[in-house]
Amino acid sequence: MRIVVQKYGGSSVADTERIRNVAERIKRKAEAGYKVVVVVSAMGKTTDNLLSLAKSLSVSPNPREMDMLLSTGEQISIALLSIALEEIGMRAKSFNAFQLNIKTTDQHTKARIKDIDDDMILNTLKDHDVIIVAGFQGIDESHDLTTLGRGGSDTTAVALAAKLGCLCEIYSDVDGIYTCDPKIYPAAKKVMYVTYDDMLELASLGAKVLHSRAVEIAKKYDVKVYCASSFTDTEGTYVINKLPEWLEEPVVTGATIENGQTKITISDLPDDDETISKIFNKLSGMGINVDMISFFSDGKKTHLSFTIVEDHKDSIIKSLEEILGDDVLISNDGQYSKISIVGVGMRSSTGVAAKFFSLLSKSGVKPVLVTTSEIKISCLVKPEKSQEILRTMAKEFDL
Amino acid sequence: MRIVVQKYGGSSVADTERIRNVAERIKRKAEAGYKVVVVVSAMGKTTDNLLSLAKSLSVSPNPREMDMLLSTGEQISIALLSIALEEIGMRAKSFNAFQLNIKTTDQHTKARIKDIDDDMILNTLKDHDVIIVAGFQGIDESHDLTTLGRGGSDTTAVALAAKLGCLCEIYSDVDGIYTCDPKIYPAAKKVMYVTYDDMLELASLGAKVLHSRAVEIAKKYDVKVYCASSFTDTEGTYVINKLPEWLEEPVVTGATIENGQTKITISDLPDDDETISKIFNKLSGMGINVDMISFFSDGKKTHLSFTIVEDHKDSIIKSLEEILGDDVLISNDGQYSKISIVGVGMRSSTGVAAKFFSLLSKSGVKPVLVTTSEIKISCLVKPEKSQEILRTMAKEFDL
Repeated sequence: MRIVVQKYGGSSVADTERIRNVAERIKRKAEAGYKVVVVVSAMGKTTDNLLSLAKSLSVSPNPREMDMLLSTGEQISIALLSIALEEIGMRAKSFNAFQLNIKTTDQHTKARIKDIDDDMILNTLKDHDVIIVAGFQGIDESHDLTTLGRGGSDTTAVALAAKLGCLCEIYSDVDGIYTCDPKIYPAAKKVMYVTYDDMLELASLGAKVLHSRAVEIAKKYDVKVYCASSFTDTEGTYVINKLPEWLEEPVVTGATIENGQTKITISDLPDDDETISKIFNKLSGMGINVDMISFFSDGKKTHLSFTIVEDHKDSIIKSLEEILGDDVLISNDGQYSKISIVGVGMRSSTGVAAKFFSLLSKSGVKPVLVTTSEIKISCLVKPEKSQEILRTMAKEFDL
Repeated sequence: MRIVVQKYGGSSVADTERIRNVAERIKRKAEAGYKVVVVVSAMGKTTDNLLSLAKSLSVSPNPREMDMLLSTGEQISIALLSIALEEIGMRAKSFNAFQLNIKTTDQHTKARIKDIDDDMILNTLKDHDVIIVAGFQGIDESHDLTTLGRGGSDTTAVALAAKLGCLCEIYSDVDGIYTCDPKIYPAAKKVMYVTYDDMLELASLGAKVLHSRAVEIAKKYDVKVYCASSFTDTEGTYVINKLPEWLEEPVVTGATIENGQTKITISDLPDDDETISKIFNKLSGMGINVDMISFFSDGKKTHLSFTIVEDHKDSIIKSLEEILGDDVLISNDGQYSKISIVGVGMRSSTGVAAKFFSLLSKSGVKPVLVTTSEIKISCLVKPEKSQEILRTMAKEFDL
């Protein structure tokens, strides 16, 4: 039995016309000899509409009830897609999380998949062409409904492909992975292959094609993922473990920009082991996602800068002041943009950082924060010239 | 633990403002010392909207997938009501059919409840004020979702009250049961008590307060049902087994009208045992609900008339012609209205039929079909004078 997992995002099933289009695509795959396991998201704005209903009743609705509410969106999609498939002669059957026993942790609104029962899928595929699975949802040990957070349907799809040992195709309104945002740099190229590691750096930097948690699972279980558009038939991008040998490995795979970064600086911290961990424990306890982190210690005092995306800087600063006391200086100076270049090839290639800083310097821009990993360099710059810098990077690194 | 079941219909939870209103009503009940088990329908037009989405994809969508689709409506309501209740300080928790193990038959879109697991409810009530249950839905033995058909939430509520041995309050946009439609006969009285038997006759005649299947369950398990409006605090109507002894039993409890009746007449049928059963088996196989039935046999030939509500008279006549052959004459002569008077008191009282026909005669109306039961007389009349006749009946029988 040749099985493939296909995932269709919310914009691909936004109305009944698009659902019919998706059904036709699935039919073509089935006619090519595959048993198709389809994961769908909620239709278009359904989730947002449900969220706003809940928010109009309570500023902090109970997460368990939010999951009860939000999981209906996917259940509507799977039923409608199944009806559309049967209408064109496919033997289709839809399943929600409870029926497939998609077990998750009990962290409502951000649960993680623990296991999926594939017996029901494999048995049903014996006399069906297509299985349609509600993405984004699961059940915990108390049989309460859970949801997996933003991008959760990607996670469901990759987890299913891992369990079934097959290819995972992710369809959205984007036709693959580009080296750079084509809206900013129109000459950006679409890549045919990208590694999990590059994709992880790209995904967390804002490339909206595939959620980073899904990439993590794909990497862990070595699931080959294909990202393409559900609106066209143009070739998409494969996300894989290693680039094919015939492909000359590019040093830099992509360049990205993320706006709306808030930089917080804490000066004159005592130079001990505890203070820094106290700060990050506090932030983590508040559910704040810290991105770039930079230290500087002169042997007596420590100076710390970090960036956050969340728009709660006032409450963050207040909380930090409470735990740190009056001796330290906490400041923030407006919004920044983060420019990054990513590429597994950077591991084995020298001079990338030198070229990066030389390009910044030529553009007359001084970065206020720089972080690097083995396969990524990021810098924080004033937003005014950020798009221009991105274009320069893309051009000079031949993206 | 004093428990009460409350059911709120779709118009009572049509928007978040009304959901808040329902939450306040539930809170008042809880503050009066009750643990409240609430059953809710889908919000306003949700079910109709989902139906039209499905119909736009297929003229005959798979019933299993329809149940997967339609059951989402109630799941949205329970989550939102739970959020609204917690917002005003109530300890509330919502459950869908799977979580409460509401077992049904596997007839999709018209399943019947077999059992409900009340352990989860009773355990949860120990540390909660309110349990909110998704009405209308269940699960069958294969763990497929089922729905109970129109009026299904009433059925869920009464079944829960039967299981929990408590009162069942049904809230809708109608404030109780009237002797006659107040829109046609403004002097109609609201009754404080009505028996299950009268209610069964009234419900199937179109009184939209309580679904007849729910009344059947209430009668079987002797569940006291209270019907009232969720929009006012006026006293409603109790549906019970026997009228209280202090209440003088009225002979006639109500008068109703049903428009849109199609009468089909089959003349010159052979006078044997088989033909009639062949006809009704055929109609039943087509899912046609036959209402009034009248025979006349002259010893050689049988003449049969019956009424149907469904608008498929052409296909019905064609099917009957196929099984009966050319010797019989099948005819229908347009739309009629059905006028009925109902009352358990008719059992022990004489002269009701005489008065009924005398009133018809005084109105100058000749009924084309008459059927009677122990507690009901119905006649089929031309629609032109039907409302006038209803008013005469209501006035003369003191309704």
